[in-house]
Amino acid sequence: MSFARIAIIGLGLQGGSIGLAVREFLPQARTTGYDVSPDHRARAAERRLVDSVCDTAAEAVREADLVIFCVPPGAMAMAAETVREALPADALVSDVGSSKQAIAKALGEALPDHVVIPAHPVAGTENSGPDAGFAHLFRNRWCIVTPPARVDMVRLSQLVSFWEALGANVEIMTAEHHDLVLAVTSHLPHLIAYTIVGTASDLEDVTQGEVIKYSAGGFRDFTRIAASDPTMWRDVFLSNKEAVLTMLQRFSEDLTALQRAIRVGDGDTLFQHFTRTRAIRRSIIEEGQDDSRPDFGRGDHDSAKNS
Amino acid sequence: MSFARIAIIGLGLQGGSIGLAVREFLPQARTTGYDVSPDHRARAAERRLVDSVCDTAAEAVREADLVIFCVPPGAMAMAAETVREALPADALVSDVGSSKQAIAKALGEALPDHVVIPAHPVAGTENSGPDAGFAHLFRNRWCIVTPPARVDMVRLSQLVSFWEALGANVEIMTAEHHDLVLAVTSHLPHLIAYTIVGTASDLEDVTQGEVIKYSAGGFRDFTRIAASDPTMWRDVFLSNKEAVLTMLQRFSEDLTALQRAIRVGDGDTLFQHFTRTRAIRRSIIEEGQDDSRPDFGRGDHDSAKNS
Ligand SMILES: NC(=O)c1ccc[n+]([C@@H]2O[C@H](COP(=O)([O-])OP(=O)(O)OC[C@H]3O[C@@H](n4cnc5c(N)ncnc54)[C@H](OP(=O)(O)O)[C@@H]3O)[C@@H](O)[C@H]2O)c1
Ligand SMILES: NC(=O)c1ccc[n+]([C@@H]2O[C@H](COP(=O)([O-])OP(=O)(O)OC[C@H]3O[C@@H](n4cnc5c(N)ncnc54)[C@H](OP(=O)(O)O)[C@@H]3O)[C@@H](O)[C@H]2O)c1
Repeated sequence: MSFARIAIIGLGLQGGSIGLAVREFLPQARTTGYDVSPDHRARAAERRLVDSVCDTAAEAVREADLVIFCVPPGAMAMAAETVREALPADALVSDVGSSKQAIAKALGEALPDHVVIPAHPVAGTENSGPDAGFAHLFRNRWCIVTPPARVDMVRLSQLVSFWEALGANVEIMTAEHHDLVLAVTSHLPHLIAYTIVGTASDLEDVTQGEVIKYSAGGFRDFTRIAASDPTMWRDVFLSNKEAVLTMLQRFSEDLTALQRAIRVGDGDTLFQHFTRTRAIRRSIIEEGQDDSRPDFGRGDHDSAKNS
Repeated sequence: MSFARIAIIGLGLQGGSIGLAVREFLPQARTTGYDVSPDHRARAAERRLVDSVCDTAAEAVREADLVIFCVPPGAMAMAAETVREALPADALVSDVGSSKQAIAKALGEALPDHVVIPAHPVAGTENSGPDAGFAHLFRNRWCIVTPPARVDMVRLSQLVSFWEALGANVEIMTAEHHDLVLAVTSHLPHLIAYTIVGTASDLEDVTQGEVIKYSAGGFRDFTRIAASDPTMWRDVFLSNKEAVLTMLQRFSEDLTALQRAIRVGDGDTLFQHFTRTRAIRRSIIEEGQDDSRPDFGRGDHDSAKNS
């Protein structure tokens, strides 16, 4: 039995994409939604991200059999508290937050009498807000579901089917393992990208204009993820602190080794390292997790010249 | 007066793209080419990267009024030596190498009686070899020309016109400043990307399969440039050692500051940093140096699901 009434709390990139995807892939389900920002609610209604945009979170969840929290990690607890009274006792609680242990704890504490099965679709873009969502965001992407140790298997399989209907491939793992895996595949890359973009904009000898001008040499690849939402990412790092710091430590050690190879002119070490990393890209493309065209298939080689 | 006979030494991504671009944008010029690899020469002839592929470098340059070295930075000296006898005295010598001080020195020493004006088109993809080139690689991209302090202005303006004809916007600066600018916009990003891709593939708690699977969370953006040619990048780091190490030092300091903010839970510092970096992306897009579509316009959200 699939969900009939789905409430979405937070109508940004994730919430909006879920709403649009449900309409396309699960047209029999009804969606309600709420966002703390009146402007976002208005825009969500205009774009018809959900069937009905409500003025309170309580109203949005009143008849729900599934509620999905799509707010920044640090806002999950508060968002959950606002629906406690109104949420039907048998509704399933889930979310899309980028860290899982801290959020599972927060949702469990705010809604102690409900079944909570957290999830994280590994699908996003650098854009956020009610204009960012699109129905195909989850297609060909993984959604990680992190059920608690003792879980109602019927509820779990309902949630799995839901994400599969939206186009995702579902994987199940513990919240703890999720946080370690995502620390390396997502959180550390964002931290590194935020850092280098900051470094580049603070130099005395090289102007910011020069950095921008010559960014096609590699730098621009980092700027995309360093343009991601600051609130969300602050929350991600704070809510997955331990795993992020562990991965960062490993990264720093490896960077020091390459730095040393450069300093002493050890070309063989560099060459071997660079040869190894090439293979990973090939696997990612084979697994369908990236576009194989050079430069990600960017269209700008063909665009009109700027003046 | 534009160049009539252009010799290209090294028929990979850069050399092949120049050959194809000359045919498209400067159809009156004749191109010859040479590559050390017989396979690459055969493929270059098949793809007609230049009008005639020669069996020796000497033969390729014999009638040239411009020779462009398009080999890895570490191979420039040797490549230049092989043409010393055959190169006409009034031919202009240039190159496309990614570092400039070391290469200017190498070319100057190998060809002491010729005018050498080094250049670097800031345009590339992660692919290399004779199949990688395309005529539009340089369009809407910058080409940095780094003339020596005393330069023949006629020759310089000829070279500038050449690159403009190929679609590039030309900027002139010293080789020293070039090396500093590129250290931050290109060399450091590549080093960081190579490092993190290595880190991710060496973990015990997270398998390489998991890293690949969940790479859409951010990691995959780094894998593109970490798939770049190992020979070229070894040479780049060794030939621009000082500037790379300087920039790396700055990066490490900034990373330590963010690490500390995470450790002590200083959300405000994180938020402020992340807000600042967002603006840079906007400028890069406004300057036409990147594709503004979410996810670089990657096509994979619409591709068939993998199984
Ligand atoms: N972006 C990604 O790539 C990505 C990928 C996977 C998972 N996620 C996770 O998805 C969640 C949402 O991210 P997103 O990218 O969709 O962010 P987003 O586009 O900024 O959307 C979040 C929305 O929630 C609203 N909101 C904040 N607090 C709220 C509250 N208490 N009640 C109701 N609405 C509230 C926000 O309004 P205001 O802007 O006015 O605060 C905003 O409209 C986060 O937990 C994130 O970790 C993101
Ligand atoms: N790739 C980029 O994104 C990019 C951007 C701007 C500038 N550059 C610079 O452009 C230059 C060429 O890079 P690329 O990307 O075009 O590399 P590539 O695709 O690997 O092409 C280089 C070609 O030169 C050949 N070669 C090596 N030594 C030679 C020699 N002594 N004489 C003749 N041919 C020789 C190589 O053959 P083998 O493979 O058999 O050695 C290869 O076919 C480098 O200096 C690089 O720094 C590259």
